[in-house]
Amino acid sequence: MTPASRIHGVLAPVVTPFKADLSPDPKRLVRHCQWLISQNCGLAVFGTNSEANSLATEERETLLEALIAAGVDPARMMPGTGCCSMTETVRLTTQAVNHGCAGVLMLPPFYYKDVTEEGLYRYFSAVVQRVGDARLRIYLYHIPPVAIVGITPKLVERLLKAYPNIIAGMKDSSGDWNNTKTFLDTFSKDGFDVFVGSETFLLANMRNGGVGTISATANVNPAAIHELYVACAQQTTDRVKGFASRGLADEELEEQQNRLNAVRAVFANKRFPSVIAAMKEAIAIYTNDPDWARVRPPLVELTREQADTLKTELRAMGFTMAYR
Amino acid sequence: MTPASRIHGVLAPVVTPFKADLSPDPKRLVRHCQWLISQNCGLAVFGTNSEANSLATEERETLLEALIAAGVDPARMMPGTGCCSMTETVRLTTQAVNHGCAGVLMLPPFYYKDVTEEGLYRYFSAVVQRVGDARLRIYLYHIPPVAIVGITPKLVERLLKAYPNIIAGMKDSSGDWNNTKTFLDTFSKDGFDVFVGSETFLLANMRNGGVGTISATANVNPAAIHELYVACAQQTTDRVKGFASRGLADEELEEQQNRLNAVRAVFANKRFPSVIAAMKEAIAIYTNDPDWARVRPPLVELTREQADTLKTELRAMGFTMAYR
Repeated sequence: MTPASRIHGVLAPVVTPFKADLSPDPKRLVRHCQWLISQNCGLAVFGTNSEANSLATEERETLLEALIAAGVDPARMMPGTGCCSMTETVRLTTQAVNHGCAGVLMLPPFYYKDVTEEGLYRYFSAVVQRVGDARLRIYLYHIPPVAIVGITPKLVERLLKAYPNIIAGMKDSSGDWNNTKTFLDTFSKDGFDVFVGSETFLLANMRNGGVGTISATANVNPAAIHELYVACAQQTTDRVKGFASRGLADEELEEQQNRLNAVRAVFANKRFPSVIAAMKEAIAIYTNDPDWARVRPPLVELTREQADTLKTELRAMGFTMAYR
Repeated sequence: MTPASRIHGVLAPVVTPFKADLSPDPKRLVRHCQWLISQNCGLAVFGTNSEANSLATEERETLLEALIAAGVDPARMMPGTGCCSMTETVRLTTQAVNHGCAGVLMLPPFYYKDVTEEGLYRYFSAVVQRVGDARLRIYLYHIPPVAIVGITPKLVERLLKAYPNIIAGMKDSSGDWNNTKTFLDTFSKDGFDVFVGSETFLLANMRNGGVGTISATANVNPAAIHELYVACAQQTTDRVKGFASRGLADEELEEQQNRLNAVRAVFANKRFPSVIAAMKEAIAIYTNDPDWARVRPPLVELTREQADTLKTELRAMGFTMAYR
């Protein structure tokens, strides 16, 4: 897979529906994934927003098998496979590679804090060597507010040098544009693909050599995020080819970006227990399927009052979302 | 199991040996556990110092089976079973209960940060209800420097009220004596057993209603830590029964405490990558078995130079450690 043929664009860290007994619900997951793909949205299943770390390894494996069995295209998937134990990371990564997934999104081992760069290098090296498959494409997952353990430029440099075809890029969920810019400036020219962890940085990312976003709210607002991505990609292509821009003017792109930010702000309301619970509530509302609202502990769902607030605010801004 | 018959005293979060391919080594683990028991030390297998979160769920299960098969007494064991996913926590906890382990040491789910007390309450409640066994004894594991997610007095209060026979105590590895004191003052009179996470607090803990320590360095210095525990327990018993003290004077206890602290300080040397790696190196040195030094990434072993420093410092203080 050449860098040019790699997965780019908008991906959703797909939320995971649960049945009444809190077991994962493959049927609703398949339906949500099919809808996301119909909206040109890739599938970063088993991410932070998927409550993947609240699932057992087997539960993750079973869900991926269910998606594949239902005909969901693995070339549109980037499953999260990073666990605290290298043995489980190898197991999940091997499964994803064997199914032909576009890549895997890999958290660093996140239990021990203050680990050394050398220790993280050995961890990722061990995973690459044990999976032992040239088709493997790893996207390193930097999310310091949650994992605490992060991905540093020096670590990326060492890994890229050792495994130039395997280390394909990263997702930066630091929320710190200066950090993203550092990775873009240092590595994107070498075909290291930077996805921002929030669509609020999508325009900036695309203007600086990035390749898209893997963002929570792509679960509920995929079409509009994809629209901005396409417009940005068009502008970038024109610039690279020396064309006069055939696409939208800068101001129009910024207006699109502002509209995306406004939708995201509704879900990221600090009065809600989590963006995850708010998105699930929105899916429950717009698909008229209250089962979607469930989360696994330690997360909690929205209260009735919070759900009403969410509904009111989304309707006020003309937000819609419906499975076809 | 009445509070009086519960496991008390000194427990080691047992370090986990690895083979050359980094798979867990049940043979060396059994031998180390047998030695610890011969030193009157209980077995908190699969703790932070055991690199338990660097193991797959199956690897933990297989090791516990190996210990049981080798005749290691489950009544002396308190396996760590807390994972990020409630399904894995239930699975490991059920295994421990079925084998008749004295209790389980349970981390809170540690991936998501800033979770609510309600979410943690639901998590532990779900585990208790799903395990569904009156023999279950849970020791809550508070280690905020590593897990970040902690155990609060309010959470303990709610859990104790709901599950008074199941919630048996806690391990406090906050390193903050004021925190330990709060839990002791609030809950120990109700039979809530507080273990300190470092023997440096053992004397203080025993003087304030605690029941022992679950400490890293019990892996290498169990007999001396047990000696202080016994002396403290004797003093407490005498006090409760209104006897004149038949044991050591306060100054003698404090001297013992100081000697323990001095040994611990050697292992906690900030120049070493971790206490875990330093303890494994010490076992390698004193059992003349270099295989013991291995750790799983993201941890790293001591360099040759660091190992020499450790050896020199331990010999200088007359430290010994030998399997019988």
